[in-house]
Amino acid sequence: MEKVSLDQHISRQFNADLEHLKSQTLAMGGMVEKQLHDAMMALENADSELAMQVLEAEKKIDEMELIIDDACTTTIARRQPAATDLRMILAVSRSVRDLERIGDEAQRIAKMAIGLSEEGLSPRGYVEARHIANGVRETLRDCLDAFSRFDARAARETMAKDKQIDLDYRSAVRELVTYMMEDPRSISRVMNVLWALRALERIGDHAKNICEHIVFLVEGKDIRHIHPDAQD
Amino acid sequence: MEKVSLDQHISRQFNADLEHLKSQTLAMGGMVEKQLHDAMMALENADSELAMQVLEAEKKIDEMELIIDDACTTTIARRQPAATDLRMILAVSRSVRDLERIGDEAQRIAKMAIGLSEEGLSPRGYVEARHIANGVRETLRDCLDAFSRFDARAARETMAKDKQIDLDYRSAVRELVTYMMEDPRSISRVMNVLWALRALERIGDHAKNICEHIVFLVEGKDIRHIHPDAQD
Repeated sequence: MEKVSLDQHISRQFNADLEHLKSQTLAMGGMVEKQLHDAMMALENADSELAMQVLEAEKKIDEMELIIDDACTTTIARRQPAATDLRMILAVSRSVRDLERIGDEAQRIAKMAIGLSEEGLSPRGYVEARHIANGVRETLRDCLDAFSRFDARAARETMAKDKQIDLDYRSAVRELVTYMMEDPRSISRVMNVLWALRALERIGDHAKNICEHIVFLVEGKDIRHIHPDAQD
Repeated sequence: MEKVSLDQHISRQFNADLEHLKSQTLAMGGMVEKQLHDAMMALENADSELAMQVLEAEKKIDEMELIIDDACTTTIARRQPAATDLRMILAVSRSVRDLERIGDEAQRIAKMAIGLSEEGLSPRGYVEARHIANGVRETLRDCLDAFSRFDARAARETMAKDKQIDLDYRSAVRELVTYMMEDPRSISRVMNVLWALRALERIGDHAKNICEHIVFLVEGKDIRHIHPDAQD
Protein backbone atom coordinates (compact mmCIF):
# COMPACT_ATOMS: atom_id res chain seq x y z
CA MET A 1 0.00 0.00 0.00
CA GLU A 2 1.26 3.43 -0.86
CA LYS A 3 2.09 5.72 2.00
CA VAL A 4 0.09 8.95 2.00
CA SER A 5 2.38 11.96 2.34
CA LEU A 6 1.76 14.64 4.94
CA ASP A 7 0.89 17.15 2.21
CA GLN A 8 -1.69 14.86 0.71
CA HIS A 9 -3.09 14.19 4.13
CA ILE A 10 -3.45 17.91 4.88
CA SER A 11 -5.07 18.64 1.57
CA ARG A 12 -7.43 15.69 1.99
CA GLN A 13 -8.35 16.95 5.44
CA PHE A 14 -8.91 20.44 4.02
CA ASN A 15 -11.21 19.11 1.32
CA ALA A 16 -13.16 17.24 3.98
CA ASP A 17 -13.48 20.54 5.90
CA LEU A 18 -14.84 22.30 2.83
CA GLU A 19 -17.27 19.49 2.08
CA HIS A 20 -18.47 19.60 5.66
CA LEU A 21 -19.07 23.36 5.45
CA LYS A 22 -21.07 22.87 2.30
CA SER A 23 -23.24 20.04 3.63
CA GLN A 24 -23.90 21.92 6.87
CA THR A 25 -25.01 24.96 4.87
CA LEU A 26 -27.38 22.82 2.82
CA ALA A 27 -28.76 21.22 5.98
CA MET A 28 -29.39 24.69 7.38
CA GLY A 29 -31.06 25.63 4.07
CA GLY A 30 -33.41 22.67 4.45
CA MET A 31 -34.35 23.76 7.95
CA VAL A 32 -35.06 27.28 6.73
CA GLU A 33 -37.24 25.94 3.91
CA LYS A 34 -39.29 24.02 6.46
CA GLN A 35 -39.64 27.12 8.63
CA LEU A 36 -41.00 29.10 5.71
CA HIS A 37 -43.42 26.30 4.82
CA ASP A 38 -44.70 25.98 8.39
CA ALA A 39 -44.98 29.74 8.89
CA MET A 40 -47.15 30.05 5.77
CA MET A 41 -49.34 27.13 6.88
CA ALA A 42 -49.75 28.80 10.26
CA LEU A 43 -50.64 32.11 8.58
CA GLU A 44 -53.26 30.63 6.27
CA ASN A 45 -54.96 28.71 9.05
CA ALA A 46 -54.34 31.23 11.84
CA ASP A 47 -52.76 28.25 13.60
CA SER A 48 -51.02 29.66 16.66
CA GLU A 49 -49.73 26.26 17.77
CA LEU A 50 -47.79 25.70 14.55
CA ALA A 51 -46.65 29.33 14.70
CA MET A 52 -45.20 28.73 18.17
CA GLN A 53 -43.29 25.73 16.79
CA VAL A 54 -41.74 28.00 14.18
CA LEU A 55 -40.66 30.49 16.86
CA GLU A 56 -39.16 27.62 18.85
CA ALA A 57 -37.26 26.09 15.90
CA GLU A 58 -35.71 29.48 15.09
CA LYS A 59 -33.22 29.01 17.94
CA LYS A 60 -31.82 25.95 16.22
CA ILE A 61 -31.25 27.94 13.03
CA ASP A 62 -29.51 30.72 14.95
CA GLU A 63 -27.28 28.07 16.47
CA MET A 64 -26.48 26.60 13.06
CA GLU A 65 -25.40 30.00 11.79
CA LEU A 66 -22.98 30.47 14.68
CA ILE A 67 -21.54 26.96 14.32
CA ILE A 68 -21.00 27.22 10.56
CA ASP A 69 -19.67 30.77 10.70
CA ASP A 70 -17.29 29.80 13.47
CA ALA A 71 -16.09 26.84 11.40
CA CYS A 72 -15.47 29.27 8.50
CA THR A 73 -13.30 31.55 10.65
CA THR A 74 -11.36 28.61 12.09
CA THR A 75 -10.80 27.10 8.65
CA ILE A 76 -9.47 30.39 7.27
CA ALA A 77 -7.15 30.84 10.25
CA ARG A 78 -5.84 27.24 10.18
CA ARG A 79 -5.65 26.48 6.47
CA GLN A 80 -4.91 29.96 5.15
CA PRO A 81 -6.68 29.21 1.89
CA ALA A 82 -6.25 31.31 -1.22
CA ALA A 83 -8.31 32.04 -4.35
CA THR A 84 -11.26 29.67 -4.89
CA ASP A 85 -11.07 27.98 -1.49
CA LEU A 86 -11.08 31.31 0.33
CA ARG A 87 -13.95 32.53 -1.83
CA MET A 88 -15.90 29.37 -1.09
CA ILE A 89 -15.50 29.83 2.65
CA LEU A 90 -16.48 33.50 2.43
CA ALA A 91 -19.47 32.58 0.28
CA VAL A 92 -20.58 30.03 2.89
CA SER A 93 -20.17 32.57 5.67
CA ARG A 94 -22.26 35.12 3.76
CA SER A 95 -24.89 32.60 2.72
CA VAL A 96 -25.55 31.35 6.24
CA ARG A 97 -26.14 34.97 7.28
CA ASP A 98 -28.78 35.26 4.57
CA LEU A 99 -30.29 31.92 5.54
CA GLU A 100 -30.52 33.08 9.13
CA ARG A 101 -32.26 36.27 7.99
CA ILE A 102 -34.73 34.17 6.02
CA GLY A 103 -35.39 32.29 9.25
CA ASP A 104 -35.99 35.66 10.95
CA GLU A 105 -38.53 36.63 8.33
CA ALA A 106 -40.28 33.25 8.67
CA GLN A 107 -40.47 34.03 12.37
CA ARG A 108 -42.11 37.38 11.57
CA ILE A 109 -44.70 35.57 9.45
CA ALA A 110 -45.35 33.19 12.35
CA LYS A 111 -45.92 36.19 14.61
CA MET A 112 -48.49 37.56 12.17
CA ALA A 113 -50.18 34.14 12.26
CA ILE A 114 -50.45 34.48 16.04
CA GLY A 115 -51.89 37.98 15.57
CA LEU A 116 -54.53 36.58 13.22
CA SER A 117 -55.37 33.74 15.59
CA GLU A 118 -56.13 36.39 18.21
CA GLU A 119 -57.92 38.97 16.06
CA GLY A 120 -59.68 36.61 13.63
CA LEU A 121 -58.86 35.80 10.02
CA SER A 122 -58.18 38.61 7.58
CA PRO A 123 -61.01 38.96 5.05
CA ARG A 124 -58.48 39.28 2.23
CA GLY A 125 -54.91 38.70 1.13
CA TYR A 126 -54.52 34.92 1.45
CA VAL A 127 -54.62 34.21 -2.27
CA GLU A 128 -51.95 36.84 -2.88
CA ALA A 129 -49.83 35.63 0.04
CA ARG A 130 -50.00 32.02 -1.15
CA HIS A 131 -49.08 33.04 -4.69
CA ILE A 132 -46.09 35.10 -3.55
CA ALA A 133 -45.03 32.44 -1.06
CA ASN A 134 -45.00 29.83 -3.86
CA GLY A 135 -42.73 32.05 -5.93
CA VAL A 136 -40.43 32.69 -2.97
CA ARG A 137 -40.27 29.02 -2.03
CA GLU A 138 -39.37 28.08 -5.60
CA THR A 139 -36.64 30.74 -5.64
CA LEU A 140 -35.24 29.46 -2.35
CA ARG A 141 -35.24 25.85 -3.55
CA ASP A 142 -33.57 26.77 -6.84
CA CYS A 143 -30.95 28.83 -5.06
CA LEU A 144 -30.08 26.02 -2.64
CA ASP A 145 -29.96 23.69 -5.61
CA ALA A 146 -27.54 26.04 -7.40
CA PHE A 147 -25.48 26.19 -4.21
CA SER A 148 -25.28 22.40 -3.94
CA ARG A 149 -23.81 22.23 -7.47
CA PHE A 150 -21.90 25.55 -7.28
CA ASP A 151 -23.73 26.41 -10.47
CA ALA A 152 -23.30 30.09 -11.35
CA ARG A 153 -25.51 29.86 -14.42
CA ALA A 154 -28.44 28.46 -12.44
CA ALA A 155 -27.80 31.10 -9.77
CA ARG A 156 -28.09 33.89 -12.35
CA GLU A 157 -31.31 32.41 -13.72
CA THR A 158 -32.78 32.21 -10.23
CA MET A 159 -31.86 35.83 -9.52
CA ALA A 160 -33.77 37.00 -12.55
CA LYS A 161 -36.98 35.46 -11.15
CA ASP A 162 -36.89 37.72 -8.10
CA LYS A 163 -38.18 40.58 -10.25
CA GLN A 164 -41.53 38.87 -10.69
CA ILE A 165 -41.87 38.43 -6.93
CA ASP A 166 -41.30 42.17 -6.46
CA LEU A 167 -43.97 42.98 -9.03
CA ASP A 168 -46.46 40.57 -7.46
CA TYR A 169 -45.70 41.97 -4.04
CA ARG A 170 -46.31 45.55 -5.10
CA SER A 171 -49.60 44.75 -6.82
CA ALA A 172 -50.80 42.77 -3.77
CA VAL A 173 -49.99 45.69 -1.45
CA ARG A 174 -51.91 48.10 -3.67
CA GLU A 175 -54.92 45.80 -3.70
CA LEU A 176 -54.94 45.34 0.07
CA VAL A 177 -54.59 49.07 0.73
CA THR A 178 -57.59 49.68 -1.50
CA TYR A 179 -59.52 46.98 0.35
CA MET A 180 -58.72 48.51 3.73
CA MET A 181 -60.18 51.82 2.56
CA GLU A 182 -63.40 50.06 1.65
CA ASP A 183 -63.61 48.14 4.90
CA PRO A 184 -61.78 50.06 7.64
CA ARG A 185 -62.88 47.62 10.35
CA SER A 186 -60.62 45.01 8.74
CA ILE A 187 -57.50 47.21 8.83
CA SER A 188 -55.84 45.62 11.82
CA ARG A 189 -56.32 42.08 10.47
CA VAL A 190 -55.28 42.97 6.92
CA MET A 191 -52.16 44.67 8.31
CA ASN A 192 -51.03 41.27 9.64
CA VAL A 193 -51.16 39.90 6.11
CA LEU A 194 -49.41 43.00 4.75
CA TRP A 195 -46.48 42.57 7.13
CA ALA A 196 -46.31 38.89 6.16
CA LEU A 197 -46.16 39.88 2.48
CA ARG A 198 -43.33 42.27 3.28
CA ALA A 199 -41.47 39.43 5.00
CA LEU A 200 -41.94 37.22 1.91
CA GLU A 201 -40.55 39.95 -0.32
CA ARG A 202 -37.48 40.18 1.93
CA ILE A 203 -37.01 36.42 1.80
CA GLY A 204 -36.88 36.74 -1.99
CA ASP A 205 -34.16 39.38 -1.56
CA HIS A 206 -32.09 37.13 0.68
CA ALA A 207 -32.42 34.21 -1.75
CA LYS A 208 -31.14 36.58 -4.44
CA ASN A 209 -28.19 37.48 -2.20
CA ILE A 210 -27.29 33.80 -1.88
CA CYS A 211 -27.33 33.52 -5.68
CA GLU A 212 -24.88 36.44 -5.79
CA HIS A 213 -22.59 34.66 -3.33
CA ILE A 214 -22.62 31.59 -5.60
CA VAL A 215 -21.59 33.67 -8.61
CA PHE A 216 -18.84 35.31 -6.49
CA LEU A 217 -17.65 31.86 -5.42
CA VAL A 218 -17.56 30.38 -8.91
CA GLU A 219 -16.52 33.34 -11.04
CA GLY A 220 -14.63 35.44 -8.50
CA LYS A 221 -16.77 38.37 -9.54
CA ASP A 222 -18.71 40.41 -7.04
CA ILE A 223 -21.96 41.12 -8.81
CA ARG A 224 -23.83 42.81 -6.01
CA HIS A 225 -25.33 46.12 -7.01
CA ILE A 226 -24.87 45.51 -10.71
CA HIS A 227 -28.01 45.99 -12.72
CA PRO A 228 -29.12 42.57 -14.02
CA ASP A 229 -29.26 43.80 -17.60
CA ALA A 230 -25.66 44.96 -17.42
CA GLN A 231 -24.29 41.69 -16.10
CA ASP A 232 -23.30 39.95 -19.28
CA MET B 1 19.73 55.59 10.61
CA GLU B 2 18.65 52.04 11.37
CA LYS B 3 17.82 49.77 8.48
CA VAL B 4 14.26 48.47 8.49
CA SER B 5 14.13 44.69 8.10
CA LEU B 6 11.87 43.04 5.53
CA ASP B 7 9.73 41.56 8.30
CA GLN B 8 9.20 44.94 9.90
CA HIS B 9 8.38 46.39 6.52
CA ILE B 10 5.75 43.73 5.83
CA SER B 11 4.15 44.09 9.24
CA ARG B 12 4.16 47.88 8.87
CA GLN B 13 2.50 47.53 5.49
CA PHE B 14 -0.06 45.14 6.99
CA ASN B 15 -0.90 47.58 9.77
CA ALA B 16 -1.35 50.29 7.17
CA ASP B 17 -3.75 47.97 5.30
CA LEU B 18 -5.80 47.40 8.47
CA GLU B 19 -5.87 51.11 9.30
CA HIS B 20 -7.01 51.83 5.76
CA LEU B 21 -9.85 49.28 6.04
CA LYS B 22 -10.95 50.88 9.27
CA SER B 23 -10.91 54.46 8.00
CA GLN B 24 -12.74 53.46 4.81
CA THR B 25 -15.44 51.77 6.89
CA LEU B 26 -15.84 54.89 9.02
CA ALA B 27 -16.02 57.05 5.89
CA MET B 28 -18.78 54.77 4.57
CA GLY B 29 -20.51 55.05 7.96
CA GLY B 30 -20.47 58.84 7.64
CA MET B 31 -22.05 58.63 4.19
CA VAL B 32 -24.77 56.32 5.49
CA GLU B 33 -25.49 58.70 8.40
CA LYS B 34 -25.97 61.52 5.92
CA GLN B 35 -28.30 59.37 3.80
CA LEU B 36 -30.48 58.66 6.81
CA HIS B 37 -30.55 62.34 7.76
CA ASP B 38 -31.47 63.45 4.24
CA ALA B 39 -34.10 60.72 3.81
CA MET B 40 -35.83 61.80 7.02
CA MET B 41 -35.74 65.48 5.97
CA ALA B 42 -37.25 64.48 2.63
CA LEU B 43 -39.97 62.47 4.40
CA GLU B 44 -40.95 65.24 6.80
CA ASN B 45 -41.15 67.84 4.06
CA ALA B 46 -42.40 65.52 1.30
CA ASP B 47 -39.37 66.87 -0.58
CA SER B 48 -39.04 64.73 -3.69
CA GLU B 49 -35.96 66.57 -4.91
CA LEU B 50 -33.97 65.73 -1.78
CA ALA B 51 -35.37 62.19 -1.92
CA MET B 52 -34.02 61.82 -5.45
CA GLN B 53 -30.59 62.90 -4.21
CA VAL B 54 -30.73 60.12 -1.63
CA LEU B 55 -31.56 57.55 -4.33
CA GLU B 56 -28.67 58.87 -6.42
CA ALA B 57 -26.12 58.80 -3.57
CA GLU B 58 -27.01 55.19 -2.77
CA LYS B 59 -24.90 54.03 -5.75
CA LYS B 60 -21.81 55.50 -4.12
CA ILE B 61 -22.50 53.52 -0.94
CA ASP B 62 -22.98 50.30 -2.89
CA GLU B 63 -19.63 50.98 -4.54
CA MET B 64 -17.94 51.57 -1.18
CA GLU B 65 -19.21 48.22 0.07
CA LEU B 66 -17.75 46.37 -2.91
CA ILE B 67 -14.40 48.19 -2.65
CA ILE B 68 -14.00 47.58 1.09
CA ASP B 69 -15.20 43.99 0.93
CA ASP B 70 -12.86 43.28 -1.96
CA ALA B 71 -9.98 44.80 0.03
CA CYS B 72 -10.91 42.47 2.92
CA THR B 73 -10.76 39.37 0.71
CA THR B 74 -7.46 40.47 -0.85
CA THR B 75 -5.94 41.22 2.55
CA ILE B 76 -6.91 37.80 3.92
CA ALA B 77 -5.50 36.04 0.84
CA ARG B 78 -2.23 38.03 0.83
CA ARG B 79 -1.43 38.42 4.51
CA GLN B 80 -3.02 35.25 5.85
CA PRO B 81 -3.78 36.90 9.18
CA ALA B 82 -4.63 34.95 12.31
CA ALA B 83 -6.57 35.61 15.51
CA THR B 84 -7.33 39.30 16.14
CA ASP B 85 -6.28 40.56 12.71
CA LEU B 86 -8.47 38.01 10.94
CA ARG B 87 -11.36 38.82 13.25
CA MET B 88 -10.91 42.51 12.54
CA ILE B 89 -11.05 41.97 8.79
CA LEU B 90 -14.12 39.72 9.09
CA ALA B 91 -15.77 42.30 11.36
CA VAL B 92 -15.11 45.01 8.76
CA SER B 93 -16.52 42.82 6.00
CA ARG B 94 -19.67 42.12 8.04
CA SER B 95 -20.07 45.72 9.16
CA VAL B 96 -19.94 47.16 5.65
CA ARG B 97 -22.74 44.77 4.69
CA ASP B 98 -24.85 46.14 7.51
CA LEU B 99 -23.94 49.71 6.56
CA GLU B 100 -25.01 49.01 3.01
CA ARG B 101 -28.33 47.62 4.26
CA ILE B 102 -28.83 50.78 6.31
CA GLY B 103 -28.29 52.69 3.09
CA ASP B 104 -30.96 50.49 1.45
CA GLU B 105 -33.43 51.29 4.21
CA ALA B 106 -32.66 55.02 3.88
CA GLN B 107 -33.47 54.61 0.21
CA ARG B 108 -36.81 53.02 1.13
CA ILE B 109 -37.58 56.03 3.33
CA ALA B 110 -36.71 58.34 0.42
CA LYS B 111 -39.14 56.41 -1.78
CA MET B 112 -41.89 56.92 0.80
CA ALA B 113 -41.05 60.64 0.73
CA ILE B 114 -41.62 60.61 -3.02
CA GLY B 115 -44.93 58.80 -2.45
CA LEU B 116 -46.00 61.52 -0.01
CA SER B 117 -44.96 64.29 -2.38
CA GLU B 118 -47.33 62.74 -4.94
CA GLU B 119 -50.25 61.86 -2.66
CA GLY B 120 -50.03 64.75 -0.21
CA LEU B 121 -48.72 64.82 3.36
CA SER B 122 -49.86 62.17 5.81
CA PRO B 123 -52.18 63.65 8.46
CA ARG B 124 -50.30 61.75 11.18
CA GLY B 125 -47.12 59.95 12.11
CA TYR B 126 -44.45 62.62 11.72
CA VAL B 127 -43.92 63.19 15.43
CA GLU B 128 -43.49 59.44 15.96
CA ALA B 129 -41.22 59.10 12.93
CA ARG B 130 -39.01 61.97 14.07
CA HIS B 131 -38.79 60.54 17.58
CA ILE B 132 -37.82 57.07 16.38
CA ALA B 133 -35.42 58.51 13.79
CA ASN B 134 -33.63 60.46 16.54
CA GLY B 135 -33.18 57.28 18.55
CA VAL B 136 -31.94 55.37 15.51
CA ARG B 137 -29.54 58.14 14.50
CA GLU B 138 -28.09 58.24 18.01
CA THR B 139 -27.66 54.46 17.97
CA LEU B 140 -25.91 54.60 14.62
CA ARG B 141 -23.57 57.40 15.76
CA ASP B 142 -22.72 55.56 18.98
CA CYS B 143 -22.07 52.34 17.13
CA LEU B 144 -19.72 54.01 14.62
CA ASP B 145 -18.03 55.71 17.56
CA ALA B 146 -17.55 52.33 19.28
CA PHE B 147 -16.19 50.96 16.00
CA SER B 148 -13.67 53.78 15.67
CA ARG B 149 -12.26 52.93 19.12
CA PHE B 150 -12.89 49.17 18.91
CA ASP B 151 -14.71 49.61 22.20
CA ALA B 152 -16.67 46.46 23.10
CA ARG B 153 -18.10 47.99 26.25
CA ALA B 154 -19.57 50.95 24.38
CA ALA B 155 -20.86 48.54 21.72
CA ARG B 156 -22.73 46.52 24.37
CA GLU B 157 -24.23 49.69 25.85
CA THR B 158 -25.39 50.82 22.42
CA MET B 159 -27.00 47.43 21.72
CA ALA B 160 -29.08 47.70 24.86
CA LYS B 161 -30.65 50.94 23.56
CA ASP B 162 -32.15 49.18 20.56
CA LYS B 163 -34.86 47.72 22.80
CA GLN B 164 -36.36 51.18 23.37
CA ILE B 165 -36.51 51.78 19.63
CA ASP B 166 -38.45 48.53 19.17
CA LEU B 167 -40.93 49.55 21.87
CA ASP B 168 -41.39 53.02 20.37
CA TYR B 169 -41.85 51.48 16.95
CA ARG B 170 -44.54 49.09 18.10
CA SER B 171 -46.48 51.77 19.93
CA ALA B 172 -46.30 54.10 16.89
CA VAL B 173 -47.62 51.36 14.60
CA ARG B 174 -50.55 50.66 16.92
CA GLU B 175 -51.41 54.35 17.04
CA LEU B 176 -51.30 54.77 13.27
CA VAL B 177 -53.40 51.66 12.65
CA THR B 178 -56.03 53.06 15.02
CA TYR B 179 -55.89 56.39 13.21
CA MET B 180 -56.39 54.74 9.81
CA MET B 181 -59.55 53.08 11.09
CA GLU B 182 -60.91 56.47 12.10
CA ASP B 183 -60.01 58.15 8.83
CA PRO B 184 -59.88 55.54 6.03
CA ARG B 185 -59.32 58.17 3.35
CA SER B 186 -55.85 58.74 4.82
CA ILE B 187 -54.82 55.07 4.64
CA SER B 188 -52.65 55.31 1.56
CA ARG B 189 -50.73 58.33 2.90
CA VAL B 190 -50.35 56.93 6.42
CA MET B 191 -49.06 53.67 4.92
CA ASN B 192 -46.10 55.60 3.49
CA VAL B 193 -45.19 56.70 7.01
CA LEU B 194 -45.74 53.18 8.34
CA TRP B 195 -43.29 51.68 5.83
CA ALA B 196 -40.80 54.43 6.73
CA LEU B 197 -41.14 53.51 10.42
CA ARG B 198 -40.50 49.88 9.53
CA ALA B 199 -37.34 50.93 7.69
CA LEU B 200 -36.18 52.90 10.76
CA GLU B 201 -36.72 49.87 12.97
CA ARG B 202 -34.60 47.78 10.60
CA ILE B 203 -31.84 50.40 10.66
CA GLY B 204 -31.78 50.01 14.44
CA ASP B 205 -31.36 46.24 13.94
CA HIS B 206 -28.43 46.73 11.58
CA ALA B 207 -26.73 49.16 13.97
CA LYS B 208 -27.13 46.47 16.64
CA ASN B 209 -25.52 43.94 14.29
CA ILE B 210 -22.50 46.24 13.87
CA CYS B 211 -22.20 46.42 17.65
CA GLU B 212 -22.13 42.61 17.71
CA HIS B 213 -19.34 42.60 15.12
CA ILE B 214 -17.32 44.96 17.36
CA VAL B 215 -17.70 42.63 20.35
CA PHE B 216 -16.71 39.66 18.14
CA LEU B 217 -13.65 41.61 16.96
CA VAL B 218 -12.50 42.66 20.43
CA GLU B 219 -13.46 39.67 22.55
CA GLY B 220 -13.43 36.89 19.97
CA LYS B 221 -16.91 35.93 21.14
CA ASP B 222 -19.79 35.65 18.76
CA ILE B 223 -22.70 37.11 20.68
CA ARG B 224 -25.30 37.04 17.95
CA HIS B 225 -28.55 35.43 19.06
CA ILE B 226 -27.65 35.57 22.72
CA HIS B 227 -30.31 37.14 24.84
CA PRO B 228 -28.97 40.53 26.08
CA ASP B 229 -29.70 39.66 29.71
CA ALA B 230 -27.62 36.50 29.44
CA GLN B 231 -24.52 38.19 28.00
CA ASP B 232 -22.59 39.01 31.15
